[in-house]
Amino acid sequence: MDTFGRHLLVEYRGCDGELLNDLDFIEVLMKRAAVAARATIVTSTFHMFAPQGVSGVVVVQESHLSIHTWPERGYAAVDFYTCGDCKPELAHQELLAGLRARAFELMLVHRGDGAHGSCLHMERHLRGVSDPMAPVCASGDVVSASLGWGV
Amino acid sequence: MDTFGRHLLVEYRGCDGELLNDLDFIEVLMKRAAVAARATIVTSTFHMFAPQGVSGVVVVQESHLSIHTWPERGYAAVDFYTCGDCKPELAHQELLAGLRARAFELMLVHRGDGAHGSCLHMERHLRGVSDPMAPVCASGDVVSASLGWGV
Repeated sequence: MDTFGRHLLVEYRGCDGELLNDLDFIEVLMKRAAVAARATIVTSTFHMFAPQGVSGVVVVQESHLSIHTWPERGYAAVDFYTCGDCKPELAHQELLAGLRARAFELMLVHRGDGAHGSCLHMERHLRGVSDPMAPVCASGDVVSASLGWGV
Repeated sequence: MDTFGRHLLVEYRGCDGELLNDLDFIEVLMKRAAVAARATIVTSTFHMFAPQGVSGVVVVQESHLSIHTWPERGYAAVDFYTCGDCKPELAHQELLAGLRARAFELMLVHRGDGAHGSCLHMERHLRGVSDPMAPVCASGDVVSASLGWGV
């Protein structure tokens, strides 16, 4: 089986804190994201932390999707790692809308045997805002701020 | 709670294919890696694929560790994402030895609120070999090949 994978690491900021603390909501959203990415769900596990926060993983035939939330910060760290013909960027669109994120930052890493050889390869690093009041940050290695990448 | 996290993305190559196809072995190894990283295990899920391959995730209080294996390729893609004072590089050492990998490639990404601001930040990208016959690959963005980074 082809080992080539596309791994999106995404940070969501300015999210709705109540949603980030709602385990059932997060689980449904993550499974919806997996389906949107055209992945096939194998199993999943979600956990509620005290006093707050949710962690969860959806294992798919094509790898996994994971989330960790900090409701008090309006922040979630998410990974969409899929092999084959999946579209992890479509999972990202589900989360961006579902969490009502005001801003995101995203890194796309190629893994396994791909066009760049048998190597990890950072393909994209970009930020986006859906709200002009969203927090911004300084980073020296953001190589693209364009959102027009074929979603 | 502090959102700062250190996320290691690691590719192991030239591994023992039988070990990569042994679900019980992989599960024990990943849990040992979590403990080595000084993380606290919350829950886990491991799955055996047909005709071969194992996927598994260990959710820890400090985020998660995941693995996907391709026994026929001697290849495993692993993530160690830990927040707080954990040491994901110690988990990497467990896997490197446990899988009998001949080579690895590793990317360290900072996440959440850290010294670099509220941003994803690629801190290190390096390769290592434990066998001079190990496969090598060409990559334009490997910024360090040194293994001496405080493990």
